[in-house]
Amino acid sequence: MPFRFELLQTEKKARRGRFHTAHGVVETPVFMAVGTQATVKGLTPDQLDAAGVQMLLGNTYHLTLRPGDEVIAQLGGLHRFMGWRRPILTDSGGFQIYSLAANLKIDDHAAVFRSHLDGDLLELTPEKAIRIQENLGSDIAMCLDECPPFDTPAEYRAVAVNRTLLWAERCQAAHRAADQALFAIVQGGTDIALRTRCAEALAKLNFPGYALGGFSVGETPQQMAAALEPSADALPADKPRYLMGVGKPLDLLLAVARGIDMFDCVMPTRNGRNATAFTGTGQVKLRNACHKRDSGPLESDCPCPTCTQFSRAYLHHLFLAEEMLGPTLVSLHNLAFYNRLMADIRRAIEEQRFGQFYADRLARWGGEFL
Amino acid sequence: MPFRFELLQTEKKARRGRFHTAHGVVETPVFMAVGTQATVKGLTPDQLDAAGVQMLLGNTYHLTLRPGDEVIAQLGGLHRFMGWRRPILTDSGGFQIYSLAANLKIDDHAAVFRSHLDGDLLELTPEKAIRIQENLGSDIAMCLDECPPFDTPAEYRAVAVNRTLLWAERCQAAHRAADQALFAIVQGGTDIALRTRCAEALAKLNFPGYALGGFSVGETPQQMAAALEPSADALPADKPRYLMGVGKPLDLLLAVARGIDMFDCVMPTRNGRNATAFTGTGQVKLRNACHKRDSGPLESDCPCPTCTQFSRAYLHHLFLAEEMLGPTLVSLHNLAFYNRLMADIRRAIEEQRFGQFYADRLARWGGEFL
Repeated sequence: MPFRFELLQTEKKARRGRFHTAHGVVETPVFMAVGTQATVKGLTPDQLDAAGVQMLLGNTYHLTLRPGDEVIAQLGGLHRFMGWRRPILTDSGGFQIYSLAANLKIDDHAAVFRSHLDGDLLELTPEKAIRIQENLGSDIAMCLDECPPFDTPAEYRAVAVNRTLLWAERCQAAHRAADQALFAIVQGGTDIALRTRCAEALAKLNFPGYALGGFSVGETPQQMAAALEPSADALPADKPRYLMGVGKPLDLLLAVARGIDMFDCVMPTRNGRNATAFTGTGQVKLRNACHKRDSGPLESDCPCPTCTQFSRAYLHHLFLAEEMLGPTLVSLHNLAFYNRLMADIRRAIEEQRFGQFYADRLARWGGEFL
Repeated sequence: MPFRFELLQTEKKARRGRFHTAHGVVETPVFMAVGTQATVKGLTPDQLDAAGVQMLLGNTYHLTLRPGDEVIAQLGGLHRFMGWRRPILTDSGGFQIYSLAANLKIDDHAAVFRSHLDGDLLELTPEKAIRIQENLGSDIAMCLDECPPFDTPAEYRAVAVNRTLLWAERCQAAHRAADQALFAIVQGGTDIALRTRCAEALAKLNFPGYALGGFSVGETPQQMAAALEPSADALPADKPRYLMGVGKPLDLLLAVARGIDMFDCVMPTRNGRNATAFTGTGQVKLRNACHKRDSGPLESDCPCPTCTQFSRAYLHHLFLAEEMLGPTLVSLHNLAFYNRLMADIRRAIEEQRFGQFYADRLARWGGEFL
């Protein structure tokens, strides 16, 4: 089944959409849970269902190192391997080359780097990034891009954009899987002219979807907020728009208001493992002694399995006792919180009251989530 | 609802029974999952249900140190605190005084020891052990006993038995909770005369159930096997018999054949966390490279959520990648394996073919599980 995106409704720049994949439908704006190593840390597929997760992100870099994309292909692909029936997006490994791997040498041919696991020398080309993702069998694959840090000099930023464009063409030429949509990535940091040039060049290649890379790589929230709107404006209106690696709840609202449809971030699970819960009134640190005798749920209006079954006192105890169940239960809640926020956003756009919803949350969360 | 035990059927010394508690019925022989710190490590109550767990064991020593039994009482008791609706048995702390705590001083009045968490000086008396367990609100409480190591000199072993008897009387006198059954513990190590004397003295006090303590404390399997039958024979026939801290699958069969009704052991969860799975054909080490491409389930005839959803290759990957989900999924399977074994044992006794079942498993597992 070929990938198809429907733009159902808009309110100013906010978009309510839907896309279709071989593994089912995804309602947008959507938040994707991060399942780096073929697992969302500590959660079973059933628990992800219970948290309202529509779609996962898997990491090409990690999975090709371990267990190996060919092993996963032999075992029937990533969905079957990890027991997840709904859609999966895989990244291209471009981000991890800078963030995790060592001894980088990058030129137009390939990125050469050392594995963060065993120091093995590895080479990633656009063609190889595509072959890996075809082996994984994700529903959405990403083009290999070059994603330099925020403080990269302007000259090099242009080099990285040119390489990202070159590699997008090569990825498109190499891509064969009919059941997999290949998205292109716009780079350019906070340089709007550069981003616009990159977006326009990629738009000519008519990808089924586009991502904004190079955000959340060290810039301030203000810098991101300023660059995001023109960056989104430069993308084709009839294709889904994915803001990679973002973000906090307020970031999601801010980005939806600027026309973004898709997100991923490790924050709900990473913070969950670290005893920090997201709630409608701010973040809750569950190790704090104030929770020791608190018989109330983490969040009183949350229908997730954690909030309906357990007290703050119990979660506090699990973290103090260093029990695995603490990270599991708070990650589950945090993903449910994120997915509930996205469902609220979708409903607000449908009912043409997203502007009010955004203003309300901004007022409530201003200091909490930025 | 007062505790009630029914002995439904016997085959030679093997017993098929049932007991009733305020939190429901338990079919015996039963294996209790260990939930030391108010959680079976890594598993939710729903996952315990899916593994067929009938009953949990909670640890008085750990829970009184953290979060504190009074905190749990304020929060509605251990069942509510940990979200577990079925029966719970709590031990008395006697075993942990020797196995975990430091700076022991024990006399007829009390055991004085230091917390293994923070070194605080603590005193446990029979009366306090009962008060803690009443605060926890378990369905079955255990008398405080003295459980010295296997290599204790014979003279001291007799002292420990006398103290265990004295403390059983004091526990019985202190115990008030109508919804909680108080079991007595028989000590005496592998000294049958001493165990028999202890059992007979306790039987006169007419407890609703009896445990054999002091097994699995360093003796050989042969020493345990030899001492177990006369120790069980010394217990009243119309009361449930609980063999504390045992054991491997073959130990359970061996003990059921000698008249034991109840078991607990950390092995299914501890081995599960350590990548070792129990199967009908022996233990499986999931880190071994032979599993890397194995698309089959851990155990082909196992209906547990792990075996129906995931391959050995996936479990292997989770352990190599140090992902939390590995310990969770294998602990879940191991508990399901234990509970399936107990269900098979119960059915075999009902159908008067336990002798054959025992012989078959002994032949199959002889080298694997002893």
